[in-house]
Amino acid sequence: MSLLDTPRGDTEPDSPTLEFQVADLDLAEAGRHQIRLAEQEMPGLMALRERYAESRPLAGARIAGSLHMTVQTAVLIETLVTLGAQVRWASCNIFSTQDEAAAAVVVGRDGTPTDPRGVPVFAWKGETVEEYWDCAERIFDWSTEAVAEGGDYLGPTMILDDGGDATLLVQRGVEYERGDGVPETRDEDGAEQRAFLDVLRRSLDRDPERWQRIAADIRGVSEETTTGVHRLLEMDREGTLLFPAISVNDSVTKSKFDNRYGIRHSLVDGLNRATDILIGGKTAFVVGYGDVGKGAVDALRGQGARVIVGEVDPILALQAAMDGFQVAPLDDVVGQVDIVVTATGNDGVVTVDHLLGLKHLAVVANVGHFDTEIDVAGLETLEGAERIRIKPQVDEWRLPNGRSIVVLSEGRLMNLGNATGHPSFVMSMSFTNQVLAQLELWTTPEAYPVSVATLPRALDEEVARLHLDALGAKLTRLTKRQAKYLGVDREGPFKPDTYRY
Amino acid sequence: MSLLDTPRGDTEPDSPTLEFQVADLDLAEAGRHQIRLAEQEMPGLMALRERYAESRPLAGARIAGSLHMTVQTAVLIETLVTLGAQVRWASCNIFSTQDEAAAAVVVGRDGTPTDPRGVPVFAWKGETVEEYWDCAERIFDWSTEAVAEGGDYLGPTMILDDGGDATLLVQRGVEYERGDGVPETRDEDGAEQRAFLDVLRRSLDRDPERWQRIAADIRGVSEETTTGVHRLLEMDREGTLLFPAISVNDSVTKSKFDNRYGIRHSLVDGLNRATDILIGGKTAFVVGYGDVGKGAVDALRGQGARVIVGEVDPILALQAAMDGFQVAPLDDVVGQVDIVVTATGNDGVVTVDHLLGLKHLAVVANVGHFDTEIDVAGLETLEGAERIRIKPQVDEWRLPNGRSIVVLSEGRLMNLGNATGHPSFVMSMSFTNQVLAQLELWTTPEAYPVSVATLPRALDEEVARLHLDALGAKLTRLTKRQAKYLGVDREGPFKPDTYRY
Amino acid sequence: MSLLDTPRGDTEPDSPTLEFQVADLDLAEAGRHQIRLAEQEMPGLMALRERYAESRPLAGARIAGSLHMTVQTAVLIETLVTLGAQVRWASCNIFSTQDEAAAAVVVGRDGTPTDPRGVPVFAWKGETVEEYWDCAERIFDWSTEAVAEGGDYLGPTMILDDGGDATLLVQRGVEYERGDGVPETRDEDGAEQRAFLDVLRRSLDRDPERWQRIAADIRGVSEETTTGVHRLLEMDREGTLLFPAISVNDSVTKSKFDNRYGIRHSLVDGLNRATDILIGGKTAFVVGYGDVGKGAVDALRGQGARVIVGEVDPILALQAAMDGFQVAPLDDVVGQVDIVVTATGNDGVVTVDHLLGLKHLAVVANVGHFDTEIDVAGLETLEGAERIRIKPQVDEWRLPNGRSIVVLSEGRLMNLGNATGHPSFVMSMSFTNQVLAQLELWTTPEAYPVSVATLPRALDEEVARLHLDALGAKLTRLTKRQAKYLGVDREGPFKPDTYRY
Amino acid sequence: MSLLDTPRGDTEPDSPTLEFQVADLDLAEAGRHQIRLAEQEMPGLMALRERYAESRPLAGARIAGSLHMTVQTAVLIETLVTLGAQVRWASCNIFSTQDEAAAAVVVGRDGTPTDPRGVPVFAWKGETVEEYWDCAERIFDWSTEAVAEGGDYLGPTMILDDGGDATLLVQRGVEYERGDGVPETRDEDGAEQRAFLDVLRRSLDRDPERWQRIAADIRGVSEETTTGVHRLLEMDREGTLLFPAISVNDSVTKSKFDNRYGIRHSLVDGLNRATDILIGGKTAFVVGYGDVGKGAVDALRGQGARVIVGEVDPILALQAAMDGFQVAPLDDVVGQVDIVVTATGNDGVVTVDHLLGLKHLAVVANVGHFDTEIDVAGLETLEGAERIRIKPQVDEWRLPNGRSIVVLSEGRLMNLGNATGHPSFVMSMSFTNQVLAQLELWTTPEAYPVSVATLPRALDEEVARLHLDALGAKLTRLTKRQAKYLGVDREGPFKPDTYRY
Repeated sequence: MSLLDTPRGDTEPDSPTLEFQVADLDLAEAGRHQIRLAEQEMPGLMALRERYAESRPLAGARIAGSLHMTVQTAVLIETLVTLGAQVRWASCNIFSTQDEAAAAVVVGRDGTPTDPRGVPVFAWKGETVEEYWDCAERIFDWSTEAVAEGGDYLGPTMILDDGGDATLLVQRGVEYERGDGVPETRDEDGAEQRAFLDVLRRSLDRDPERWQRIAADIRGVSEETTTGVHRLLEMDREGTLLFPAISVNDSVTKSKFDNRYGIRHSLVDGLNRATDILIGGKTAFVVGYGDVGKGAVDALRGQGARVIVGEVDPILALQAAMDGFQVAPLDDVVGQVDIVVTATGNDGVVTVDHLLGLKHLAVVANVGHFDTEIDVAGLETLEGAERIRIKPQVDEWRLPNGRSIVVLSEGRLMNLGNATGHPSFVMSMSFTNQVLAQLELWTTPEAYPVSVATLPRALDEEVARLHLDALGAKLTRLTKRQAKYLGVDREGPFKPDTYRY
Repeated sequence: MSLLDTPRGDTEPDSPTLEFQVADLDLAEAGRHQIRLAEQEMPGLMALRERYAESRPLAGARIAGSLHMTVQTAVLIETLVTLGAQVRWASCNIFSTQDEAAAAVVVGRDGTPTDPRGVPVFAWKGETVEEYWDCAERIFDWSTEAVAEGGDYLGPTMILDDGGDATLLVQRGVEYERGDGVPETRDEDGAEQRAFLDVLRRSLDRDPERWQRIAADIRGVSEETTTGVHRLLEMDREGTLLFPAISVNDSVTKSKFDNRYGIRHSLVDGLNRATDILIGGKTAFVVGYGDVGKGAVDALRGQGARVIVGEVDPILALQAAMDGFQVAPLDDVVGQVDIVVTATGNDGVVTVDHLLGLKHLAVVANVGHFDTEIDVAGLETLEGAERIRIKPQVDEWRLPNGRSIVVLSEGRLMNLGNATGHPSFVMSMSFTNQVLAQLELWTTPEAYPVSVATLPRALDEEVARLHLDALGAKLTRLTKRQAKYLGVDREGPFKPDTYRY
Repeated sequence: MSLLDTPRGDTEPDSPTLEFQVADLDLAEAGRHQIRLAEQEMPGLMALRERYAESRPLAGARIAGSLHMTVQTAVLIETLVTLGAQVRWASCNIFSTQDEAAAAVVVGRDGTPTDPRGVPVFAWKGETVEEYWDCAERIFDWSTEAVAEGGDYLGPTMILDDGGDATLLVQRGVEYERGDGVPETRDEDGAEQRAFLDVLRRSLDRDPERWQRIAADIRGVSEETTTGVHRLLEMDREGTLLFPAISVNDSVTKSKFDNRYGIRHSLVDGLNRATDILIGGKTAFVVGYGDVGKGAVDALRGQGARVIVGEVDPILALQAAMDGFQVAPLDDVVGQVDIVVTATGNDGVVTVDHLLGLKHLAVVANVGHFDTEIDVAGLETLEGAERIRIKPQVDEWRLPNGRSIVVLSEGRLMNLGNATGHPSFVMSMSFTNQVLAQLELWTTPEAYPVSVATLPRALDEEVARLHLDALGAKLTRLTKRQAKYLGVDREGPFKPDTYRY
Repeated sequence: MSLLDTPRGDTEPDSPTLEFQVADLDLAEAGRHQIRLAEQEMPGLMALRERYAESRPLAGARIAGSLHMTVQTAVLIETLVTLGAQVRWASCNIFSTQDEAAAAVVVGRDGTPTDPRGVPVFAWKGETVEEYWDCAERIFDWSTEAVAEGGDYLGPTMILDDGGDATLLVQRGVEYERGDGVPETRDEDGAEQRAFLDVLRRSLDRDPERWQRIAADIRGVSEETTTGVHRLLEMDREGTLLFPAISVNDSVTKSKFDNRYGIRHSLVDGLNRATDILIGGKTAFVVGYGDVGKGAVDALRGQGARVIVGEVDPILALQAAMDGFQVAPLDDVVGQVDIVVTATGNDGVVTVDHLLGLKHLAVVANVGHFDTEIDVAGLETLEGAERIRIKPQVDEWRLPNGRSIVVLSEGRLMNLGNATGHPSFVMSMSFTNQVLAQLELWTTPEAYPVSVATLPRALDEEVARLHLDALGAKLTRLTKRQAKYLGVDREGPFKPDTYRY
């Protein structure tokens, strides 16, 4: 990756109190343009800025953030700052940083590339795994700030996490400090695991109680994803969780919007950028009819495809049927299929046999989760199969049966690989939940014992409310009499916790 | 109602062991035709018959049912019987009985009008409230059966309830027996309350411990509706609930199907039968974007209406916006509206002022809950307003402003009043839940303490599964490896309890 | 039909100048209610009334109308009268008259059943074919009017026809008068042909030049249907056409609206009234993807059915595919089908073999044209097949293979037989074309030589324009500069004659 | 444009008989990849290859083609060659050439960049207007071929044209030769007109009868676009048309597919690539409800936008209303609009006043025709307005009122500028019409007098038929009896010429 040859942001910059490491501060202007346009699409965050700009309820809070360093995240970071927080940031993926966004955040709205005045960011597109864990560790090192402010702290007061890597660092750091130190690297450890252990090993060498002191200051973590929440719930079950956690992922305004409406947008976008084939008239098979699958199906039908749905869950299968779709196993119809989309979170749902059964030049795309939904690994070892790179993230695979298929993003999430991920508006909903979660942890820590909580329904509704105006949607208001009749408060929450939306 | 003049079924019929009271046994043949067609649309019930016809797992169970005595309910009753249960039945509404269905159930598949061999039913269209509560009481009187079988019981082993009236009879019976007897009728009591108390007063006079002995035999109740569940939850909170309860209403296969897909069907049906106006091109306002509202909106858009949505809940409002609908208070757009549909469960959502603001001959319809969603009472006292009956359940109201509106079913549920209620397929899902709930209560009573439970997710999924074949929908099956990867059983349940579908 | 036993309207009524023959004048009030509501749904006709009430451009015109005597036709008739015309009316189908509408038209807005002051109508539900042709002949007998006005005419100045029967009477009358008289009835002639010839034979006996004198006065005919236009085009080709004809059927505002949007409404309506089965989730097969088929498909998808399309025309087949539907011959998928809808105008598109292949209790419905689209005749002679009448227009056919199917309206148009035909709004578009055609023939006869014309595009656009307001649709207006740029008049017409809409 | 500095294809290449001028033959391999994938999406062309590869019905034909030199056009060119034709090609737009496609066509399937064996192409991205007309002239210079074959011809036997520039060269060449020579360049002539006249002036200088001899050999032209057909019809009216013309544009399989389904695809694609804003929930205004507008509306609704339609034509406005859309002038709703799409072919439909009234950062896009649909020129002279280039083809305009708007492709066709134009499948339909038109002109010239014809309906249907298989759509076949009943041939054509589809 040529990225590694380009000049990086300096760790000893002109501005003596601002640390950072990004690709190129000269990208800041381009990044600022995009941030400005994105702000218009992120009304929830902008509303919070307006509401709290004066009172600065996050004053005193120090937030260590680990989440894809994109244009949308830039709007999130600058919202946290507007609310009074200090922030340090790394990306949670080695490829997902948009360098111009990172540069703009470092430079800040009032700075220049030669006099950056923004936020310490440690992220660039194309990090090595060693660099990745270095960056992750640096968001916990608040010594510069402590010196500048005369504070006696080591680390953050809260973590804002995506996937749980930042949290993992603290959890394992404490575990190894309290136990027998960092375990030896084993032969079977991958590069990532080695890098992770190396970072902790160096840390324990320098200061054998550092993570314990860091953990003591942390009021909690807000976690973005299913995967991260899964990890947190396990720790909670095992009794090892060190601080309270809020699952942003389980807010209705995250799961029912990001998943469904985000995919409705980005699936079509990714298919178009990758292949230019006409979706109309094609037969598409969508594996999975959860929220993501429903969004995929809406998108494909909206473009005139005939859609067939595969499901293992009879309730979801029946929903698909009642919504007018043929429901069948992929095995039964594979020879009719032009486009396969996986949306399951499961493993091996499209097998090599399926791939061999598809129509010539059928397109295979994953919007579910890991790259194992489609057995690309199986393709790679299939005798007689040959890969031809059509363009980045678009491979033709010539199969031994004489047909070809087109695999997007090597079976990884094509909405990220072939499109530009979830659009700003949908990210605004997730990130407004994030900010509210950080506010909760900071301002009412007593409400959150060491456990995994979701945001109260009232805040969930608040997130929705903050996004209505931008769409010109106007709420009806309950009269006092109606509120009493329904037994709810006029301002909500309006539905019981079991309501399914 | 001329019904009251027609000959009733005799309570001393030829068949000395079969009690019943219905409108006319000669309607049985017509009823049997309809039941036969409905069976095809109720695959869940038919699948249970097939599965359990031999093992008869409900053998020994005595079920007191109180639920609209319709063609669909006939299929439910005969399914319970096929599974081995004994059944007595009343309707839960004075108007909802389909007399031909009642007759067919009494006559039975092997009987004739002169030799009925079916099930004791006590229900006819157009009961008085006194008759209604008499019928309700009769489903608890199993003396004939006890005599025939040499049993020493008084009443049923389970209740199958819709709205909670049957349960209420037992609860209050026990309360009054244990306390100071049946309270005096008060001046403010309505006719219904008087009839209810009279039935209990007569019972206590005859046997002051009857309801306590009946309650002791009851293993539980399965309840169909929100309203009934609401009552049960209150009793549970107050500690007065006498036996376990299962809320059928909260099954996913009830709430997410009956509400959404049932209304999608019956709203259009009701509008067409009532008015014959072309829905296409019209502007429709749907109040409420819950499951019922979503179904209404789908139906109207599917017929080419432009739809505007009113909502008080910001999350639902945002869903409506993301689904492509204008969201506005009725006040703001009332002058553009040709069709208003209420789907809220709330009170007074369409006021007299709204009605005065509508377009000439706009249609006003309620698919929510009670007749107070639309302020028809306000119309009745509005000076200068005049009602013209166009046909049954369709009234033109001439307004003092010179315009008219068309009110369906006097503001009551128009899917019942102007159409034929929910279609069989959707009722099959509810009723399969009912049968499974009865099976649970009978076969694994230990799993249900005195409380309000929902059916286990596995049974909910089973209900869905039993309806797939009829639609030609074919499930995909998890491999063992996939099941392990997901951490679920291959046969389900597939989703956590918090999953929102 | 018990109708024949009910008292008919008298041909020597109290009002000495008003002839008529209808079922029962006491139905007039009920009819007037329905007419009043229909007027709201027929804005094109009402706009013409308003525009021309004063100038009465049809003054002097005498219109002989032959078209289903329904509520909508009543609004048409009274519009013609408001524009100054004299009118006599018969139905064009022995079953299609709505007796209350006929009564209301005879009584008129100012009359009473005992003092009718409306329009001479000769139509009732359930005519014999002899009665039918008698009625048809009476709309040509304007002697009463001639006497009252001192006019020296015999018949009408224009015909308004549906299917061409009224026109046929004149054409054949003239042919037989000029030739060798009315041909002998042959053995193979059906009852209808005999009745037709009898009417003409009596006429020639009375007055051997009557039809020639009638024809001489006729400025033209406006024809409603494909079938009627087909007949006219044949006469025109053969050189026998006696007067100009305008095809209302070929107006865009007829063919692209009545067909598509009318069926979208009435197919669902008919299915629901006939069967109450849930359309959602079912597999529906629509034969034909013309305008009617497109409307049917929209309706079924709008209710959540999975739709498969059968087509013989590759262009229409490709449209169906691009719209997202599976396209296949019925043979290939018949075993999956729950609902079959024919929309072809073709013969035998659903054969007995197809019917035998359908799922148990599949519903079979025709919205195309004649009852031969579905081979019901073949069913009737199929050994082992048995018909069970479920209710009027709904037959279960038990098939020799043990399955049953449900046939609607005996294979005739189910939108008429099971629903209430096209809704008023759509009929308003057709009928506004009719009125404009009559105005053209009366006021600019020189523009219409003896041939078959369509209405000028400008009038077609005018029909559309008159229906926009009622839907709240507001046109944009071309600037002078834009009109010049496009080379069109600011007021239209906007599109070339070849434009396909 | 840096393109001008890159090495061009040599006009004296290694292969002594192959002339060409393209950007870089080394792009051929990349181009061949894309051509290969596109072939799969162009089944009509591939079917013609298969059908005619052996008989080579275009043997002897020489085709001068002037049409965007894209990947899809490469498939067209190579189809013509497979059918036996000789071809020379230029682009019809200075920017639209895809250089890799041009290179691949020159190199040919059997050649290499150093030994090109394909087709003479004269086209590259970023021609000057002088270069453009030079290239156009070179497709008429068949001297090399004549020498090689010993033929005594000067030019082509047919023209395949897009927009009419190639035809114009011949028409004007002949006119000037027969008249007083090429007119003097006038001061008001633009650069393009000067270049055009210069080319002809040089030609007449060299050979004053060249174009007359060229014209004499031309059997006809097939024209792709509305604009080109418009020009041809004018010549025909004026009596100056020199040879027969076939309008491909008026085939149903062009106008009803390319317009509607092409835009449905490329509008969403262009919006996404340009802006990444979430379309769902936004309010979109589509100006024009013709085929293009209908496609735009489908696409936007399919992505969850609320759509409002503006129309001047009442019939189209009524269609929009009946399809469920609000119909209003842009003036009335401009303040609610997030996305404006023009689809009119008209001038100035979005004015500066409209642009000033839009929401902040509203997106403005044209999919109609010329860049004057949106008054971008007016923006450029608006005091206080400032343009900020966000990225190529995406401009933010800061308006004097403090708001901004985002203008795509400077108001030019955004489906070309921001997306990749019409997808291959849709182009396959157009181009299959082109090939059939060329076949008609070559093989049955007697059927085409000097005039402007459309392809017979049977060929139109054939184009559709050739695209069904690829979509898995299977036609039903008429029986002989049915064909007779309908009065059509079993193989079609199935519809009269006036049928509107």
